[in-house]
Amino acid sequence: MEYKYHLSESEMPRFFYNIVADMPNKPMPPLHPGTREPITPDLLEPLFPRDLILQEVSTERYIEIPEEVRKIYAQWRPTPLFRARNLEKLIDTPARIFYKYEGVSPAGSHKPNTAVAQAFYNKVSGVKGIATETGAGQWGTALAFGCQLFGLDCEVYMVRVSYDQKPYRKVMMNTFGAQVYPSPSDRTEFGRKMLKKDPGSSGSLGIAISEAIEKAAADPKTHYALGSVLNHVLLHQTIIGQESLLQMEKAGHMPDIVVAPFGGGSNFAGIAFPFLHLNFTKNQNIRCIAVEPTSCPKLTRGSFKYDFGDTAGMTPLLPMFTLGHDFMPSAIHAGGLRYHGAGVIVSQLLKDQLIEAVAQNQERCFSAGMDFIRSEGIIPAPEATHAIATVIDEAIQCREEGTPKNILFNLCGHGYFDMGAYADYMAGKLKDAPADEDAIRKSLKTLDALQPPAR
Amino acid sequence: MEYKYHLSESEMPRFFYNIVADMPNKPMPPLHPGTREPITPDLLEPLFPRDLILQEVSTERYIEIPEEVRKIYAQWRPTPLFRARNLEKLIDTPARIFYKYEGVSPAGSHKPNTAVAQAFYNKVSGVKGIATETGAGQWGTALAFGCQLFGLDCEVYMVRVSYDQKPYRKVMMNTFGAQVYPSPSDRTEFGRKMLKKDPGSSGSLGIAISEAIEKAAADPKTHYALGSVLNHVLLHQTIIGQESLLQMEKAGHMPDIVVAPFGGGSNFAGIAFPFLHLNFTKNQNIRCIAVEPTSCPKLTRGSFKYDFGDTAGMTPLLPMFTLGHDFMPSAIHAGGLRYHGAGVIVSQLLKDQLIEAVAQNQERCFSAGMDFIRSEGIIPAPEATHAIATVIDEAIQCREEGTPKNILFNLCGHGYFDMGAYADYMAGKLKDAPADEDAIRKSLKTLDALQPPAR
Repeated sequence: MEYKYHLSESEMPRFFYNIVADMPNKPMPPLHPGTREPITPDLLEPLFPRDLILQEVSTERYIEIPEEVRKIYAQWRPTPLFRARNLEKLIDTPARIFYKYEGVSPAGSHKPNTAVAQAFYNKVSGVKGIATETGAGQWGTALAFGCQLFGLDCEVYMVRVSYDQKPYRKVMMNTFGAQVYPSPSDRTEFGRKMLKKDPGSSGSLGIAISEAIEKAAADPKTHYALGSVLNHVLLHQTIIGQESLLQMEKAGHMPDIVVAPFGGGSNFAGIAFPFLHLNFTKNQNIRCIAVEPTSCPKLTRGSFKYDFGDTAGMTPLLPMFTLGHDFMPSAIHAGGLRYHGAGVIVSQLLKDQLIEAVAQNQERCFSAGMDFIRSEGIIPAPEATHAIATVIDEAIQCREEGTPKNILFNLCGHGYFDMGAYADYMAGKLKDAPADEDAIRKSLKTLDALQPPAR
Repeated sequence: MEYKYHLSESEMPRFFYNIVADMPNKPMPPLHPGTREPITPDLLEPLFPRDLILQEVSTERYIEIPEEVRKIYAQWRPTPLFRARNLEKLIDTPARIFYKYEGVSPAGSHKPNTAVAQAFYNKVSGVKGIATETGAGQWGTALAFGCQLFGLDCEVYMVRVSYDQKPYRKVMMNTFGAQVYPSPSDRTEFGRKMLKKDPGSSGSLGIAISEAIEKAAADPKTHYALGSVLNHVLLHQTIIGQESLLQMEKAGHMPDIVVAPFGGGSNFAGIAFPFLHLNFTKNQNIRCIAVEPTSCPKLTRGSFKYDFGDTAGMTPLLPMFTLGHDFMPSAIHAGGLRYHGAGVIVSQLLKDQLIEAVAQNQERCFSAGMDFIRSEGIIPAPEATHAIATVIDEAIQCREEGTPKNILFNLCGHGYFDMGAYADYMAGKLKDAPADEDAIRKSLKTLDALQPPAR
């Protein structure tokens, strides 16, 4: 009776999978905010190395993973895939539940998959360092790890509320050699502006992104890196799903349903895209479900519009499901899911009804997380509990219908740095804070002025 | 170029290895503190289930691992064995360095190997719950996990200083359903006595053990469990070394040196005993090195004497290397190594010069831990950094001598709950506190009255 499905190093995928090649409707182009015309790749060159810009616009189906990157992946990849037999027993379901566990990486989440690749391409491009933002700290930790491997400086703008709540995440980034600043900071013009407006600001991912971009744009020796949303970031994460595919084959149970938490899209894309490839090319009908928090419901309650990726409006306009770049989600513990928009590719897939989306509230997610801890023994990151809540919903439906479906989800990271959140949950102190209807309407309204003229 | 050596579930060992069968000099018997005569097993029945008492005195070479226990192990075992290629590069050594990583277990350390087995045998014996102590929290977390699996109550006495410094360890035990109390507590007679003497007492492992034993002895439905020192605990950990043996064979490099941190002995025994078996039976000459902190140096500066296992003097007298049960080690971060004595079997092996021991100071250990983080990307528990420091010492010697030795060590757990310690280290705030000569002499002096008359 197997619990784990391992792959050998030689079975590790050698290519990233680019879903753009297979999409029936290609993503719409990013627009220049001034001209509202499609941007040209060279506009991105102050921020990103050429290799990543090429990946961002590539339509090739497979892009080779550099040997140097594969060598680093091999420290923890292929990651294990587990059968959650005890969770199945706990909820008395005929469903077979599997999870891909990305928490075994050095940073404790899936983020190093792209952090290492981005650090590599930046190193090759000759810059000295990278500036970035981080919410709960998963991404910042991963980029700190990646930069250290290639001798790059790493400057992290960490959302103030997380900086204060999770001092140990900061320490972890420090052990990997990164400099960490609370955002808004006095190190950037935009940060100073935000602090002037609200000296006690708890910050947001959008503000931190603006600060990191400002730093990178001002220094030719410094690039910028983003941990989700962009096409090349999603691309790098597809190694998760490709491995899962091989492991589910070994398990002898191909999934009927694939579930992942949703922040900007890289977590979901990572595990789901290689299975969507089967839908596109092999007539499969695998349901892929993205799970977002009810406090930041861009997929289920946002609009498909052109919007900025950051708060200051420094990025190109991206066509995405969004709540508006001014939208301030409440301070839930799943900091990685507190982003106003969804990546361009995932947005197009949702618009075309090729994937599904659901929202879960915080209390339900932690309750599902506790079920997982008490059955499987692993403490999931708050982000990951969103997937677990939906997996349990689906597994219960399987019980009611008597159908033994195969469900796979991405256990994207461990929750060892989130014990304060679990303590709050057990003490009955966690509040649900679904997004306010008026706040969404108001924030979306500001986007009207940004839309391109109809053609 | 391989970094990882996995075993399949079917390769997981089916027996614990009992080194007593192969020892040239068998361990001396525990004595009754009143009569100074060898105790009979029935004296232990209020505290332990019969199966564990039989294991404690067994001389059989192999003891079958119950099917129920193996099924739970399979959730995370066999654990991976890694080649530390980046650490080798960092210290420019011809040595090959390997580490067995026990941090992938649900509790994040090697402790569940025995916690699950002990919980199983206790369940079979019909008790309702288990009381125990914990220092830094690794053992308490593991037993909480084990008890939950078998529906047993779990009551943990946690050394006060750790209880205050590591609130999240307590939360983790709570998520696994355990009740956690700071020790000394007002729940036991001995705890109240200690609090009366010193209301602000920061506690010690010896005091916490006394409290847990008192609770278990007073309640026929509650047993006691210890996370190290005892023969049956060491026995359960031998699954680590047995797996490592198979993995080193796959790697094609049998170890010349095996290194492990040393608290009470289970960590060291777990990885080393199956290799000592080769020394005993196959004429091998593998050096096995136990690494203790200079603040609690029972192996390198203690005496081989009969001593109590706890502070209150409730246990039988055990023949061990000890600093005396009154010895109070300074509050280093490697809480799991702050125990005054060494297990009986390991003590006999050291006395017979069949194993080696060295002491490392705290600052050096954290420096080695940082080298490991920056090369291998995994944050080690402070306990584990002791092994790393000695591995680096040996690897540097290999460089100086030009000998490519194979070194294996037990990376017994991760340090995600110890980021405060790393922050102190990076801020230059960690002090070394080697044990004081006078304190050791004074504490050892009290043992004179406990020794049996010469025969």
